[in-house]
Amino acid sequence: MNWKNLDATESFELLKAHDRVDLSTAMAGESGAKRVAEYRIPMGCGLVYSYAAKQVDDEILDILQALADEQQLTQKYEELYNGGIVNTGESRMVLHQLCRGQLGKDVFHNGVNKREFFVTQQNRIAEFANKVHNGELLNEKGEKYNTVVQIGIGGSDLGPRALYIALENWARVTGNLKMEAKFISNVDPDDASAVLEKVDIPHAIFIVVSKSGTTLETLTNETFVKNAIKAAGCEVSKHMAAVTSETSPLAGNPEYLDSFYMDDFIGGRYSSSSAVGGAVLSLAFGPEIFARILNGAAEEDKLAKNPNVRENADLLDALIGVYERNVFGYPMTAVLPYSQALSRFPAHLQQLDMESNGKHVNRFGEKLNYQTGPIIYGEPGTNGQHSFYQLLHQGTQIVPMQFVGFRKSQRGDDVEIQGTTSQQKLSANVAAQIVAFATGKNDENPNKVFEGQRPSSIIVGDQLIPETLGALLAHFENKVMFQGFTWNINSFDQEGVQLGKVLANKVLANDTDGALAGYSEMLSIF
Amino acid sequence: MNWKNLDATESFELLKAHDRVDLSTAMAGESGAKRVAEYRIPMGCGLVYSYAAKQVDDEILDILQALADEQQLTQKYEELYNGGIVNTGESRMVLHQLCRGQLGKDVFHNGVNKREFFVTQQNRIAEFANKVHNGELLNEKGEKYNTVVQIGIGGSDLGPRALYIALENWARVTGNLKMEAKFISNVDPDDASAVLEKVDIPHAIFIVVSKSGTTLETLTNETFVKNAIKAAGCEVSKHMAAVTSETSPLAGNPEYLDSFYMDDFIGGRYSSSSAVGGAVLSLAFGPEIFARILNGAAEEDKLAKNPNVRENADLLDALIGVYERNVFGYPMTAVLPYSQALSRFPAHLQQLDMESNGKHVNRFGEKLNYQTGPIIYGEPGTNGQHSFYQLLHQGTQIVPMQFVGFRKSQRGDDVEIQGTTSQQKLSANVAAQIVAFATGKNDENPNKVFEGQRPSSIIVGDQLIPETLGALLAHFENKVMFQGFTWNINSFDQEGVQLGKVLANKVLANDTDGALAGYSEMLSIF
Repeated sequence: MNWKNLDATESFELLKAHDRVDLSTAMAGESGAKRVAEYRIPMGCGLVYSYAAKQVDDEILDILQALADEQQLTQKYEELYNGGIVNTGESRMVLHQLCRGQLGKDVFHNGVNKREFFVTQQNRIAEFANKVHNGELLNEKGEKYNTVVQIGIGGSDLGPRALYIALENWARVTGNLKMEAKFISNVDPDDASAVLEKVDIPHAIFIVVSKSGTTLETLTNETFVKNAIKAAGCEVSKHMAAVTSETSPLAGNPEYLDSFYMDDFIGGRYSSSSAVGGAVLSLAFGPEIFARILNGAAEEDKLAKNPNVRENADLLDALIGVYERNVFGYPMTAVLPYSQALSRFPAHLQQLDMESNGKHVNRFGEKLNYQTGPIIYGEPGTNGQHSFYQLLHQGTQIVPMQFVGFRKSQRGDDVEIQGTTSQQKLSANVAAQIVAFATGKNDENPNKVFEGQRPSSIIVGDQLIPETLGALLAHFENKVMFQGFTWNINSFDQEGVQLGKVLANKVLANDTDGALAGYSEMLSIF
Repeated sequence: MNWKNLDATESFELLKAHDRVDLSTAMAGESGAKRVAEYRIPMGCGLVYSYAAKQVDDEILDILQALADEQQLTQKYEELYNGGIVNTGESRMVLHQLCRGQLGKDVFHNGVNKREFFVTQQNRIAEFANKVHNGELLNEKGEKYNTVVQIGIGGSDLGPRALYIALENWARVTGNLKMEAKFISNVDPDDASAVLEKVDIPHAIFIVVSKSGTTLETLTNETFVKNAIKAAGCEVSKHMAAVTSETSPLAGNPEYLDSFYMDDFIGGRYSSSSAVGGAVLSLAFGPEIFARILNGAAEEDKLAKNPNVRENADLLDALIGVYERNVFGYPMTAVLPYSQALSRFPAHLQQLDMESNGKHVNRFGEKLNYQTGPIIYGEPGTNGQHSFYQLLHQGTQIVPMQFVGFRKSQRGDDVEIQGTTSQQKLSANVAAQIVAFATGKNDENPNKVFEGQRPSSIIVGDQLIPETLGALLAHFENKVMFQGFTWNINSFDQEGVQLGKVLANKVLANDTDGALAGYSEMLSIF
């Protein structure tokens, strides 16, 4: 494999030198209609990726293809799913896709077939969840459980929480909500305390989730919860389970109902497909629903193998993002789902993307001379339109946008006003925004001028259901992976979180001087 | 008054030419301790603004003072609170501070003393809320109400919602939670449908909030809710109230329990202090608690009059932000509250800041040649540490940070592990992060190098209670105002939201061609 920096490639030079697309012109009139019709790629589960409103044309697509080829992006993906040590910093394989399906060769570690390992955990979780749902497993009073509470932070929280919120209402109306799920993450005691107040503890299962089994926040909240369980007159052993790696101090705790395993080859931010998402989502919705999410992701993973950028949405989305970051110099991307159910999906993508690609050295530890991962943020539309879109339309900083929309609502409960339903209004707004951002509008009054040239893409699906959610999740994971390959960075470690931990421990040991002592005093820590 | 562009000032030239502070050096050792001790400003209600970890020194502070003087920032504030037509684009006064107190002269419009108008609305709301709480006002079955639901979007949603969430747990443990509040905002039918499913409609009051009375999302959701009220066998007239301007179509609806008024001199994103926040928060917590929020804000508003940048946190925070935006070129700011209760506060600030200062023309409609408002985003710590802080520490893009921390939790419910409480751990983490970001760390392994030089400030308070929340709200409102004055833009209009509305209406009228028709078809709108 040829691992080289972006600025060592010939295609990057071509990309920089090439004329830029005038988006206002390109998206106007017949040219716009043609782009919308042609610049789209089918994704998994009926999703479509439309990049008509991105600053690309056929020639630029050719250069992006050359860049994909030169950086061997799909070959590197193949290397990854065949068990290559792609996480070089930590000398580890990267196997989250293997939770969803076998994309290539069998992958072994210490003689264990890893696909079998993941499936075994899925089956163990399914069995556990089924027992909870059918009443084989009951609490100390012989009563059924009705709530599951995930205790985890970062990757053990954001992804599973976003997926739960994404399907909660769909599950409610389709009869698939088996247990309500809640989440405790922050070390702020007000978080655990407030969540616990609303939990029916005697009928709750708490899942402690930490890959290392040493995450400070999670261990603290574990104790918080244990105290609450005891205070409610219940037995800890009837109310707790763990998701962790087999070698962690949390593994196989005899005090717990059960323990389910992930491994070192799945990073926290990629762990929604593993037992980290599997346990809470299987308990909440049933194992069949979790399996449908995985199937959707697996379908997208397969499409990501295609080396043709015009047919591989994950790959092209990645490359257009690099073009925007390194040629246009745009420092961020907004993720704007027109679906209230995806309200926390941007927060998950924020971790996924920024923790993976917020790096200043390449995979060999050499400092880079170009920009890497962008800042990611977002809120659902139409809410965002009434909030920060003013800056996106008329501010001095161009922010590329990633829209998501669905043709049908999840609940099917709607109202018609002025001749259209809410769902039609929602979709009309996202269509209007894409065109408004791209084409802009002139006016005699400069305060009413929209300069346009704001690039966006949209992923459109029929409805947000387990399969489409899985495909969406995999799309962004694969996009981030391809961008990491293009930038020649390791998207799978996170050394940047260490220094803060070290200094926090110094404060907690009351071993401070200088500024650290000053802040500790200001905050009256001791 | 002398309204001039930033790049027409002498002090901006001085600022650009001045040596930049090496933050890693400045924040190390004794120098760091000294900065933390000295670079702080008392704010309202015992809050402290600490800017030790910003890239300033005494000389730069002198230049920022000169810039404040040259741009007449506190004089312009005086002009604003004395009723000047500061919102020039819409020829309107800007009076949100007047909801909280009389800062200057009496302000009249059409013969009405505006302070008296706002107080009258507060009193009418207080009377209404008291009647609801003490059972004088009952539902059609003679039962007490227990829930209030705000129907609004943008400024009628984000601010009130953020404030409600900020105090909900505090109110719960201090016996001040009179009614639970919920919010419906998005035109996505899944939003209203899902919220309504969890509302006890026979005991709920729905407040329809729209200044203009014409907001599409809000009118749509009003009908959604009316249908639900009828479907629950209840009378609309016993379950709905309005907050709007006196001239709007929603005003004085005889079908409603009551209507409360704001006016055109308060922009949506500044309306939390008006009836827009007043009605829902007075019903949820009682009018005394809402009054305490306003008192906190009023205290901060008074401090913002001080022309000395070393004594006025709102002013200095604004100027440092301009320095970072226009000299360092940082395109965004992260807001990172170490308080789970402030989980939605960044979303409110995102609207407040980006909608106010995301402008490309000055207040006279002339195109600007410099950057204006930054992108704002954020999540609570310590959650963010396990998510996007990797990029903040080691990414290629520097992002200035605004931390918020409190010495005490709201609920006082805590657990001690490894010798420290969760609250201590929370505070230790924010102290550690500030120092880690500023000073960085060298290492033989480049992947473990932290370059430092990441600027941040922190606002520290004793506890998040109504007064401190009000002071915090006013701080950011005033900061945004001072930045707008510095950039010479109108922070109080939002022309940038219009084009999307026009195009969405074309789609809904099925009157499309070109790209707009293409997207409409892709989304199967008709």
